[in-house]
Amino acid sequence: MSKSGQQLTDTTGCVIAPLARQPVSPEAATELAIKLKALSDPVRLRLLSVVASHAGGEACVCELSAGIDLTQPTISHHLKILRTAGLLDSERRGSWVYYRVVTDALQQLSLLLEIDTLRMSSS
Amino acid sequence: MSKSGQQLTDTTGCVIAPLARQPVSPEAATELAIKLKALSDPVRLRLLSVVASHAGGEACVCELSAGIDLTQPTISHHLKILRTAGLLDSERRGSWVYYRVVTDALQQLSLLLEIDTLRMSSS
Repeated sequence: MSKSGQQLTDTTGCVIAPLARQPVSPEAATELAIKLKALSDPVRLRLLSVVASHAGGEACVCELSAGIDLTQPTISHHLKILRTAGLLDSERRGSWVYYRVVTDALQQLSLLLEIDTLRMSSS
Repeated sequence: MSKSGQQLTDTTGCVIAPLARQPVSPEAATELAIKLKALSDPVRLRLLSVVASHAGGEACVCELSAGIDLTQPTISHHLKILRTAGLLDSERRGSWVYYRVVTDALQQLSLLLEIDTLRMSSS
């Protein structure tokens, strides 16, 4: 099934549809902008991609600093912003915290930005 | 063809793939974050959706203030940010400026955030 056939809703119950299909409501725009703002930082985008592309879609915080030249407190600060925006979930197991992407949130944003290029080129 | 099968590149020629498939490079993250930052404002998200969902994917600046309670200079300011980030193109025809979404840019972001939920749930 194409993503366009799915019914994704935001936390207020509003259905999220591609923005090329219908104008985004003020309420949905406010909620979506919070997630996009959290994503709009190169470090956070890289951290999210490290978690998302990790085996099983989950990564230990101890694995997140590889290749990212920042201190652990700075990385934790960025992880907290992603978590607060609802893009990452975390769980403590033993000594470590494990992060996992919130797939619904990413799917929602991907669907929002989906463009039907055939429709767009016909006027 | 699924979006995952497409090869989209950024302006530096780097191939953009879903972030759940591979970590985003520092260079791609910097470029993608600029577009996401431009999108991370409720008014700009609504303006972009009005243009994208308009017949033919194009809208006159004169049609963009409907339902958005802002002055024309403020709307122009937001449109300029979307244009600078490479999300909107504009063209003057007669007295009016017409806006059109840059479909490649939106496709790139949609692809980036695409999540294969089946893969994510299997570890």
